[in-house]
Order: sequence, then structure tokens, then C-alpha cells
Amino acid sequence: MSLRFDGKVAIVTGAGGGLGRTYALELAKRGCKVVVNDLGGDRHGTSASSSMADKVVQEIKAAGGQAVANYDSVEFGDKIVKTAIDNFGRIGNFFQSLIFFYIGTLDIVINNAGILRDVSLLKMTELDWDLIFKVHVKGAYAVTKAAWPYMRDQKYGRIVVTSSNAGVHGNFGQANYAAAKSALIGFANSLAQEGAKYNILANTLVPTAGSRLTETVMPKNLVDALKPEYVTPLVTYMVHESFQESGKLFEAGAGWYGTIQYYKGKGKVISNASADDIAKNWSTITDMAGAEFIGTISEQSGRLMALLDENESSSAPSGGSSSGSAFPSNIKSSALFQEMADGVKADPNAVKPLKAIVLYVITDGKNELGKFTLDFKSANPSVYLGDVQNGEKPNATVTVADSDFVDIAAGKLNAQKAFMGGKLKVKGNVMLLQKLQTLLEKAKKSKL
Amino acid sequence: MSLRFDGKVAIVTGAGGGLGRTYALELAKRGCKVVVNDLGGDRHGTSASSSMADKVVQEIKAAGGQAVANYDSVEFGDKIVKTAIDNFGRIGNFFQSLIFFYIGTLDIVINNAGILRDVSLLKMTELDWDLIFKVHVKGAYAVTKAAWPYMRDQKYGRIVVTSSNAGVHGNFGQANYAAAKSALIGFANSLAQEGAKYNILANTLVPTAGSRLTETVMPKNLVDALKPEYVTPLVTYMVHESFQESGKLFEAGAGWYGTIQYYKGKGKVISNASADDIAKNWSTITDMAGAEFIGTISEQSGRLMALLDENESSSAPSGGSSSGSAFPSNIKSSALFQEMADGVKADPNAVKPLKAIVLYVITDGKNELGKFTLDFKSANPSVYLGDVQNGEKPNATVTVADSDFVDIAAGKLNAQKAFMGGKLKVKGNVMLLQKLQTLLEKAKKSKL
Repeated sequence: MSLRFDGKVAIVTGAGGGLGRTYALELAKRGCKVVVNDLGGDRHGTSASSSMADKVVQEIKAAGGQAVANYDSVEFGDKIVKTAIDNFGRIGNFFQSLIFFYIGTLDIVINNAGILRDVSLLKMTELDWDLIFKVHVKGAYAVTKAAWPYMRDQKYGRIVVTSSNAGVHGNFGQANYAAAKSALIGFANSLAQEGAKYNILANTLVPTAGSRLTETVMPKNLVDALKPEYVTPLVTYMVHESFQESGKLFEAGAGWYGTIQYYKGKGKVISNASADDIAKNWSTITDMAGAEFIGTISEQSGRLMALLDENESSSAPSGGSSSGSAFPSNIKSSALFQEMADGVKADPNAVKPLKAIVLYVITDGKNELGKFTLDFKSANPSVYLGDVQNGEKPNATVTVADSDFVDIAAGKLNAQKAFMGGKLKVKGNVMLLQKLQTLLEKAKKSKL
Repeated sequence: MSLRFDGKVAIVTGAGGGLGRTYALELAKRGCKVVVNDLGGDRHGTSASSSMADKVVQEIKAAGGQAVANYDSVEFGDKIVKTAIDNFGRIGNFFQSLIFFYIGTLDIVINNAGILRDVSLLKMTELDWDLIFKVHVKGAYAVTKAAWPYMRDQKYGRIVVTSSNAGVHGNFGQANYAAAKSALIGFANSLAQEGAKYNILANTLVPTAGSRLTETVMPKNLVDALKPEYVTPLVTYMVHESFQESGKLFEAGAGWYGTIQYYKGKGKVISNASADDIAKNWSTITDMAGAEFIGTISEQSGRLMALLDENESSSAPSGGSSSGSAFPSNIKSSALFQEMADGVKADPNAVKPLKAIVLYVITDGKNELGKFTLDFKSANPSVYLGDVQNGEKPNATVTVADSDFVDIAAGKLNAQKAFMGGKLKVKGNVMLLQKLQTLLEKAKKSKL
């Protein structure tokens, strides 16, 4: 048993039974201090009792583990987090202790609590809708939100939200539950992006398990085959410090483990389409041949640009390339342009899809230090010092301070933020830059 | 312009500007009567005014179309639906008019209304979270729920919910918005399943458009390239009566149209896995080579069974097949078993993956009429009359009334419901039946 959790603190919501209980037991067995949260209500979200959480805590303690019970509804996430901090708070280093009165800690949140209110849309009441969202969605938000500042301050966190096959596929008689379960996917994917720089990872679990939520709709021997214990090892790994994925969906059931991703088809570009054009081209629009996983919104934007570009009537290349003089050593960005120049020489086809000329004006923050031209329009693409040659015009002109450009290249400064904040100015076709970025990233990846 | 909407009634929420306005204008131009709903609030969901909806209605009327304004918040979906029924109610046929006091109608609901409250999770307030869910999710629920009975009674409906790239990918600073937008996907996918038998189709739109919701975060020329008008034709087709998709995601932006689907990787079956086993097999678990689209929960169950089965140590076939006597004509199900027998003879490999024997006991509802054996375990799979031969034991025994089995085969009776309701009894391995169904469906499809 190599994956240990010694010194780590976890909250598992809805840990009084089913999946949550197995997570709590397994984490405790591996050295984790666990807050066993359970309201002790029935599966419809109505009653409450402290016995369920207590029983699991007793089980953990009897096996020599550390655990504390919490009986709050997940909508009061701050109270559950307070239980963790009050009971398992770590003393921070001296510098930290000067700032905070005490240093609490919380490393892992597994949002697992859930209820069911299955009913057809026709017969659904407002309470059926609201209760499901309160527990599954607002609850996961409230617990995670309360845990976030601790994870951010300590630059460490592992968050799991629990979706379901109903959330992924939709389900008959579960419009409320399926909507709530799919909400959690968008939630976790956003947390993944906000948490990236704080080493907070957030992922979605899609369990197929027999639990009190499914036993009413599943035959008995299916429930046996779908033991919660088959899901536990995946979740355990997902909250371990060696785990490095974020913003992803993982699935477990009956001993099978896998991954789910949104794939996007190549679709079709139709200029000034009418609804009738859409109908006519439907088979191409819905063709999933060559579909691919697109991870983030910015990858999506880049792909959209590329797809639009493929469709543009390709203008004949102007021909003729020019090699500039050596890049000046007083400009730090020179090294970057040199790298680009080398890359372009090594693989000219990688940048040809841009079919455009981009001029960079590098400044000291105020005055111009030098100009660099990326000619990816000519038959022989090149990067050279100085203004655009051969009587061509740049399709986009970028003005940026030398140090900012270096920071962007080093990943210290976000290009989009620099753009929004006015640190990176663009004249001409801004979309080109998005495309350029995609090309350069692709070129970089293919080298790895 | 061939796609017409004459006589049809549509509700478009948030139709005072942006995407919603273009939908309302386009539908009205094509003969649809449109309820132009807009609270007239700002994009943060705070103020309200009637001028936005009024202006769009005026535009439609000036062009000779029919429209009426509604200023209610989408959380009061019933009021918006009432506006449609009061203004555009159709007189039903004589029989209907005996039952209902008046016959209202409503054919199309486009859930488009939305607001933004962008803020990092750390700074997010409860109001930021609640307002987003109230408008996007509860609003779509309330309008759709109120429209549902009309669509169900008339056996016709077209529903669109609006997700977003943030909902599909998650987004930084939009944990609330992304969660709400992904909730709508699970909602629409569930409506699709509940609406199927009433000819109510529900789908999700993922627009990339410059609107008042995005103009603050997008450069001006990107907003121009991402005109709402590029999304309109897709939505128009999605709510037309000739459209037949349901439970799907379609995307439009900048003139590109495409499809998004969840793909599932083949993953890995690990018997009695520990978290450490999961870590060791991570590259296989996350390998997306050969990933495929799985449409519904029942397809998912079938696939899970198949994946688990592939992993089972295949027992050596027992050899020797037996052909039974002619199927009795007094049993209606005989025709079905004959069809199966013929299919198995034509393509024995299609059923071999089951590696099991299923015995059917057909009754008149009380007493046994006859037994049929599906021997898909032997080297020469066969279907024969009578009990299992060659000293083998059935892996599952199904008892069902003759007429119920015919109804199941004809699609009149849902097999799962029959099972839950006790009309179809199973002894032994129930999971086999799920697998059998998957195999038979696959065999059927490959024949088409």
C-alpha cells in the first residue's frame, strides 16, 4: 500500500453510507484525518439524525484511524469546514503564525452527498427541483467555497465532485437530478482553471454503483455487482498528492475504470448560412469522423479560428523570402524571435496555415527598441529583424514591452490578460494572434 | 426560404437583444407567432424595463409578423406560457373542445435568457451563485415545465436550452455561470428522453457569439466576427418540425456549425483494484484511443457489461449443438424465437460474446405454455424449443407471459419496466439479459 495520506485532512460529505462511507474508511486506513459528514437524512432529503456519521467514525477509530463526525447539511459548508479546521488544524510555520491567529488546514474535499427526488417533469414540484439543487449543487458549492481559502493559502488542494451517468447522458424521470449532476461538471472544470496556480486540482467522478440512491431502481444482483468498493480506489487516487489531472471526468463501476471527454466534430463553415442551408448540410455538421477532444475555452477559440481559416479562399503566396540581419543582443526578446526563426526554418509547413504577416514592435515600455517580422505568408516563411519587406503590409501589428514579452513567453504573464490590460497592443487582425498562438503551441507540442 | 413556421407558436426568453432577438425576428419572418420575453434587466440580473421586448415586437410587426411582448422574469415561467396561450391559443378539434375549456398551444420554447456575475470563487457571494442559477437553470426549468403539458397534449414540441463553451469546458472566474450552463445539458438530455413518446424534442445549443454577455471580455473585432446572426440559422432549424434530433449538443459561432458529444474511452477492468493499482494503470485508464460516443444510460450499462465480459476468462465452449423441434403455433412468441434462430444461424458470431445459456419460460400469464432455450455458449450457438439440453444449466431463466413478450418485442412494453413491475421474472444472472439486449440490438442495426 504505497499511496499514503499521513498528515492530510479530508472532508467527505454524505459519508454515513454508500460510496461516501467507503471513501472515508479507505482514506482513514491510509493515514488521512477524515471529517465524516452526514446529515443522516433519508434519500429524499427530508429527515436527519447523527447516527450514520457517528457509526462510520466509530468504525474508523476502532481500526486505529482518525475521524470526526459532522451532521450539518452541505448547504452550510462553512460549518463542515470549521469542523475540519477546529479538529485537525495544523500549526503553520513561524511566518504564517504571525499573520493568522491559528493555522487551519484542509487538503481534500470529496463532494459526495446526494439525494433523489425522481419524478417525471409533468409531475415534478418546485420542491423536487429545489431540494435536488440545494443538496447536490449549492451544497458542493458551499463546502468547496468554504474550503477554498485554506487550500489557496497552503497552495494545495484536491477536490472531487460527484456527477453520474444521469448527468452525462440525461435520464428519464430525473430531469432535476440529471441537471444538478451535470452542473457539477461545469463547476469542477471551472475550479480546475481557477485552482491551477494554487496547486488545487478539481475533477469529476462518474460512479456506477449500487447505493441507497439506486437500490430502488436496480435489481438486487446488479446492486451486488456494482459495489461502492469498486469506485473507492479511483477516488482515493484522485485525491492523492501524486495525482496530477485537473478538470477531467473519470468513471468507475463494477471494476471498470475509464475516462469521459467531450469530443467536437469538424463540422462545417457556411458563410451567411440560412436555416435552410443548415438543414441541407446537416449530415456534414453532425459528422463525428475525426472528432477530437478540446480541453479549454482558449483551445476552443483557437480551433474555431483554424476551422474558419481552412475555409477561407487561400490567396496565392507572394513568393520571395528575406533573411534579416542578426537579432540585437540588447533586446531580450531577440532570443525568442531567434527560436521562432530556427523553428520556422526547421519546419516551414507548421506556420504556413497562418497565411499572414505579423509585425512585432518591441519597446522599453515607452520607446521602440526594435521591430521583428513574422512572414508566414510567403512561400518560404521566415522571421526577420526589421519592418515588413517586399512592399507587403502586416496583417497585424503587435506592440509590447521587451520585458512583458519575455514574461508572456515564460508563462509568467497571461497573454490575454496582457491584451486586456493594454500591455500588449494589437492593430489589425486580432484573431490572427489567437491562430498564431495555436500554431506555435502545436509546433511546440509536436517537438516534445 | 423553405423552412416555414406558419401556425406555430414560440416563446423566446431573453429576446430583447443579442441572440434571443435574432431568433425572434427570424422565426417571425418565417411565419411563427412569437412571445418576445425580456425582463429588460441589465446583464447582472438587477434592474427591469419593458422597452427591450416592446422594441423587438414593434420590429416584428413592422415587418408584417406576429408577436407579443412579455416582461416576466423566467422564474415565473407559467406567466410567460400564459402570454403564449392567451394570445396565440389555437382552437382544437371537437373532441378536444369537449374536454378542455379552451385549447391553448405552444410549439417551441427557446430558453435563451441569461445574466452574468463573473467573479473568482474566492470572492463569489451567495447572491452571485443564486442569481445565476435562478435565471439560467430555474428559469429554463420553470418555462419548460409550464410549456410541457401543452406540448404533451398536442404531441408536438421543440425545446432548446442554451449552454455555452463555459458550460462545456468550464471557465476561469465563471464557476457559477459554467455550472449553470452545464446543468442545462443534463436537463435537456433528460427532457429528450421523457419527451420522446410525445414527439417533444429537446436539444442543447452552444453558441459562440458576441453579445452583451461577452462584449466586456472580448475585443471589438472579435465581437463583430461573432455576430448573433451566425447562430440564428442553427437554432431556427433546431426548432423546425423537420428537425428530428433530440438529446444532442450543437454548436455555432462565426459561421461554423458542429456537434459535441461525450466520448468514453475503453478504460480498463481491474478486479479488486486498490488505489495503487489505479495509479499503476493510469495511462490505460485514460487512454482515449478507440473512444466512442455512448448515447444513453442503457447504452452505457450495456457497454459496461460488454467491457466487463471481455475481461472474463473465456471458458472453453462445451461443443455440440442441438436443433429442437418446430416452434408451436399456439405460442405467439414462437415467431420471435424463430426470428432469433434464423438470425443466429445466419451470423453465429454475433451472439457468441454472450457465452451463456438463457432459458425462456413462456406462460399464458399463469401456466407454462412452452420453453425456449438460447444456447449462446456452445461452439454452434442455437435457439431451440424445450429445456436446456446436453446436461447444461441455464445461466439465466426468464419467465414471461406470451402476450407481454410480444409487446416487449414490438416496443409496446418497456423491458425494464416489465422487469420492475414483475411481468418479466429473471432467475440467475440478470446482467446477462442486459448484454443479450445489447447484442440483439447490435445484430438488428447491422442488418439495417
